[in-house]
Amino acid sequence: MTDPSEESSAFVAELNSAHRMSYDEFVALHQRLCTWGPDREPDERGALAAISAETVLRTLALVDEGLSVSMARDLDTVASESNPQPTLHYMVELGDQQVPEPQAYRDFVGLEYHGRAVTHLDALCHMAFEGKYFGGVAAEEVMTTTGSTWGSARPTFDGVIARAVLVDLPRMVGGGCPMGTAVTPELLEDLMAKVGLELRLGDALVLRSGADADGPMGRATVSQLASGLTPEAFVWAAERGVAILGSDTGNELRPPRVEGVKAPIHALSLTAAGVLLLDNLHLERFAEECAARGRYEAAMVFAPLPIVGGTGSPLNPIAIF
Amino acid sequence: MTDPSEESSAFVAELNSAHRMSYDEFVALHQRLCTWGPDREPDERGALAAISAETVLRTLALVDEGLSVSMARDLDTVASESNPQPTLHYMVELGDQQVPEPQAYRDFVGLEYHGRAVTHLDALCHMAFEGKYFGGVAAEEVMTTTGSTWGSARPTFDGVIARAVLVDLPRMVGGGCPMGTAVTPELLEDLMAKVGLELRLGDALVLRSGADADGPMGRATVSQLASGLTPEAFVWAAERGVAILGSDTGNELRPPRVEGVKAPIHALSLTAAGVLLLDNLHLERFAEECAARGRYEAAMVFAPLPIVGGTGSPLNPIAIF
Amino acid sequence: MTDPSEESSAFVAELNSAHRMSYDEFVALHQRLCTWGPDREPDERGALAAISAETVLRTLALVDEGLSVSMARDLDTVASESNPQPTLHYMVELGDQQVPEPQAYRDFVGLEYHGRAVTHLDALCHMAFEGKYFGGVAAEEVMTTTGSTWGSARPTFDGVIARAVLVDLPRMVGGGCPMGTAVTPELLEDLMAKVGLELRLGDALVLRSGADADGPMGRATVSQLASGLTPEAFVWAAERGVAILGSDTGNELRPPRVEGVKAPIHALSLTAAGVLLLDNLHLERFAEECAARGRYEAAMVFAPLPIVGGTGSPLNPIAIF
Amino acid sequence: MTDPSEESSAFVAELNSAHRMSYDEFVALHQRLCTWGPDREPDERGALAAISAETVLRTLALVDEGLSVSMARDLDTVASESNPQPTLHYMVELGDQQVPEPQAYRDFVGLEYHGRAVTHLDALCHMAFEGKYFGGVAAEEVMTTTGSTWGSARPTFDGVIARAVLVDLPRMVGGGCPMGTAVTPELLEDLMAKVGLELRLGDALVLRSGADADGPMGRATVSQLASGLTPEAFVWAAERGVAILGSDTGNELRPPRVEGVKAPIHALSLTAAGVLLLDNLHLERFAEECAARGRYEAAMVFAPLPIVGGTGSPLNPIAIF
Repeated sequence: MTDPSEESSAFVAELNSAHRMSYDEFVALHQRLCTWGPDREPDERGALAAISAETVLRTLALVDEGLSVSMARDLDTVASESNPQPTLHYMVELGDQQVPEPQAYRDFVGLEYHGRAVTHLDALCHMAFEGKYFGGVAAEEVMTTTGSTWGSARPTFDGVIARAVLVDLPRMVGGGCPMGTAVTPELLEDLMAKVGLELRLGDALVLRSGADADGPMGRATVSQLASGLTPEAFVWAAERGVAILGSDTGNELRPPRVEGVKAPIHALSLTAAGVLLLDNLHLERFAEECAARGRYEAAMVFAPLPIVGGTGSPLNPIAIF
Repeated sequence: MTDPSEESSAFVAELNSAHRMSYDEFVALHQRLCTWGPDREPDERGALAAISAETVLRTLALVDEGLSVSMARDLDTVASESNPQPTLHYMVELGDQQVPEPQAYRDFVGLEYHGRAVTHLDALCHMAFEGKYFGGVAAEEVMTTTGSTWGSARPTFDGVIARAVLVDLPRMVGGGCPMGTAVTPELLEDLMAKVGLELRLGDALVLRSGADADGPMGRATVSQLASGLTPEAFVWAAERGVAILGSDTGNELRPPRVEGVKAPIHALSLTAAGVLLLDNLHLERFAEECAARGRYEAAMVFAPLPIVGGTGSPLNPIAIF
Repeated sequence: MTDPSEESSAFVAELNSAHRMSYDEFVALHQRLCTWGPDREPDERGALAAISAETVLRTLALVDEGLSVSMARDLDTVASESNPQPTLHYMVELGDQQVPEPQAYRDFVGLEYHGRAVTHLDALCHMAFEGKYFGGVAAEEVMTTTGSTWGSARPTFDGVIARAVLVDLPRMVGGGCPMGTAVTPELLEDLMAKVGLELRLGDALVLRSGADADGPMGRATVSQLASGLTPEAFVWAAERGVAILGSDTGNELRPPRVEGVKAPIHALSLTAAGVLLLDNLHLERFAEECAARGRYEAAMVFAPLPIVGGTGSPLNPIAIF
Repeated sequence: MTDPSEESSAFVAELNSAHRMSYDEFVALHQRLCTWGPDREPDERGALAAISAETVLRTLALVDEGLSVSMARDLDTVASESNPQPTLHYMVELGDQQVPEPQAYRDFVGLEYHGRAVTHLDALCHMAFEGKYFGGVAAEEVMTTTGSTWGSARPTFDGVIARAVLVDLPRMVGGGCPMGTAVTPELLEDLMAKVGLELRLGDALVLRSGADADGPMGRATVSQLASGLTPEAFVWAAERGVAILGSDTGNELRPPRVEGVKAPIHALSLTAAGVLLLDNLHLERFAEECAARGRYEAAMVFAPLPIVGGTGSPLNPIAIF
């Protein structure tokens, strides 16, 4: 009998060797997604421009039960390998600062929200590739120590309402799906077909790797070993109109397979396709509800904190069934 | 000809003198709202318990256009009279900390979110009256320097979907409506009738005072002079099933009119009725959209940051038409 | 031949079993140090009251070379087992916020300075024993969420100048000195005699455990295994007039040996004797300089940040030869 | 009879018109102070290199009483015109997080320490002139979002011991000295002669403007109206060997008189002469003690927080008589 961990190591090794990409190949893929050109004003909305009043109405028409569930992880104030900059949470007042009635209790919260611990939105100005943001905007011309004048989360301040389409790797891939699995275009297409869904303009593609599920290969190692889209799979999805990509990881396949590019999906999505990212989603509950219904789509709604010039926001997206 | 500011001062003075309340009268009103008793477990959801799957579906059925607008103020990093604890916003990385590609830009945000500057949710544990939270829970038994084990925003982590009913004082009250106007049960009932709406179980009552509109009586003085519900008007609304109360002020009528109680509406809503509060909403856009449609209701959706044990959350509620 | 680690384990085990103390024995020791009584005003200076103009002059008379060395650890922004609340250090401005000349660079620093990572001063209001601060002051009567009206570091705001007397365990104890060594009164007396020094009124006793030296038993485990004074040794030092106790650990012998008291030296020093504590000193350089001279005393000078109502301060004490 | 405020306005106007400088004149002055050249390694110590063991001993020999006084302002958590980024001070623990004994009380302090409110040290990397730090170091080559690899306060981590020479404008200038007074080389020389002192190599020149004294022209307006050295006076002092310049203001004469240079003294001191700055000293007590003795010098000792790569540090310098 084979040791399961040996088996999965072999599986990962095989996948890894199969999906390597050179820097030049990556740049070619990147350019393929850059549909904007010198003759067009950079659109700060990125791929969100595809979300129209019609898609909002179609999205909300999915709601037939009136149940909403959070896709966010609890803020974590305890340092750990995957949480090196723990959220600050201090009580500012404990009912002792005012005249008797009523007693007020107030707190402070501080977040270095990028990283592996906090559920958050990546705005377009979170990443530049070869010095350029989406639309060809030069990062150094818009970004300063007080934030960016271009590419913040502002286009999402009025809220984003999109269909979330769940790819639940542990549930959908036969025989389990080890961390580090590369989701190729073929696998993605296959899984979509299996659940009877097609990606549409303005969709949010949500990938559950299982990193938050119990077990030894959990969140602690998500920076080293994480299932995720291959660059080609991202292109496949982007070309079908996906406007948002979310995952219970940092949305990157780990270990990395692209030479000289630390975060290829971030580079493709934020700087080429204008697709916003939702990192570190908590998908356990959402996935359970989907599985219980045998239906892998729901209305998703989120609205960031209005951080002027910021590179995104801590976030609590909800799925509504 | 009368000086308008004199006129409005007289108006405020008149209203003020007309709506004074003694501490004992307030306590009686408070007790009238405390429907929970020694024989019932305190329900951490408070008045949100009234929001059912049915009300969620009915709320979303209001959406017929696919337009969403924010009800939040931009986070403000500049100190002022109404923003004595400005939001901290620091760039943590400006594309200079990693190997070349891609360049990452990251920021830190820190918020002492109660007060007059940040749009936020007040959870039940934000206020105690005579030492007790809603449901009779003793604050000192649940609240510590790491937060509260009872009454945090957790019951809202899965999102809140409710009908927002707008009372737009500057637009609805004939002849303008000066800051400091006391909204009595009669005025509230009258305004609701005027727009053809009735408060229903699970509603969010949203009061626009106009504090964010241009003009001399703006936000700077909202702690001293603010239109708001009288205690009796809050009771009137709560008894009709309102689960959430929001405003572009701190939800308190200023100057205060209840002897010995600094924040009577907070005390009534959070500690007696279990009604959650949304403070410092930005209602200019929402009110314009309502006025343009002659319809003063919309679906409201919000989901707080999952601050474990916190007294609420900075928030960006959206209204969906 | 014996394995050295076995040997040292045996050593620690032996010492541990030899220095256990019951809660009642500890309380008796505590009361012995409480020389203040109901008839005396609590002196916020604690044992610093013993530092007079004369002792300052005598201290500075020790200086004969003009060399000063820091006793502080660099602030550490990286989370680790011994640094779970890493110092925040953000650049606020990088020369890009102003008109051309000159370019300004500014930063923010945030510190949760107690714990195992930051060199800091413990003021009297850092610890209460059975609800009481030094001098019998009830903690609940003076401490609030904005800090304490009694027992802050204010008496040290004008600076502290005291003779630092070094006990360098790794260098002074024959045959090495494993982490976890209990420094008994006898050992302390013996070491003082060996270096020809006597503790005097107003002294700062500085104990080097070697926790910051290279090697496997370093700072990572200082919360679990640390050399330090036994309660009796603290009493011995306090009764000789020591006003300040410092160490390259948290000043506590670990594992703890007093039943029901997590931090017995903190309790004895801060709440009974009024002796201030300097935690997490960096003593490597100071100890080298002492060893090079064969002289284990120097003038020490420190001045805290003037944190009003705070429980101490991050600190950079210097030793002057 | 003349209105005193009119008189002082006339005085300021007269001085202002008398001390204007063009950008080119300023650059010439700056170059005169840049004694370093392409053939010399930049010395990160700047003018502190002049402080030798001998000057330390000579400085401490000034001490003849054993009295030390703080030169720091209390940290201020309340926003105001001169404190737009108030110090954060939060209680992290209030005796409620641990098993019974002892009870621990801990706090967090956060400081954006540059500005007008916090007493602090400016390190060399705080300012660049035409892109260059002291010694000709290019700011962009050493400074990043995690701080600077050159020019931090590290050379002061072992403490600075220097003679503080006080120029007490309100006390020393006959007939009072209005805010905004320009201290010219002649005035400075005159005042030094009056108190019988000469500036020496390694000195700290400390200028009291009186901004912290009571009265209408206090700290609130220190950014607009502040007495200070003219550029020529700074050169005069630097050429006499001053290593540190401190003041109860931001060390800049306001309103500014140099065309195109917002902070001329910062530019001259930090980027040309390598003189460190102590901003926002609290000099009331120190000046009183000097006046009482008729002696305007004392030993000054300070040691910054060891902020790795930082642009300075909040500070509590002490003067020892």
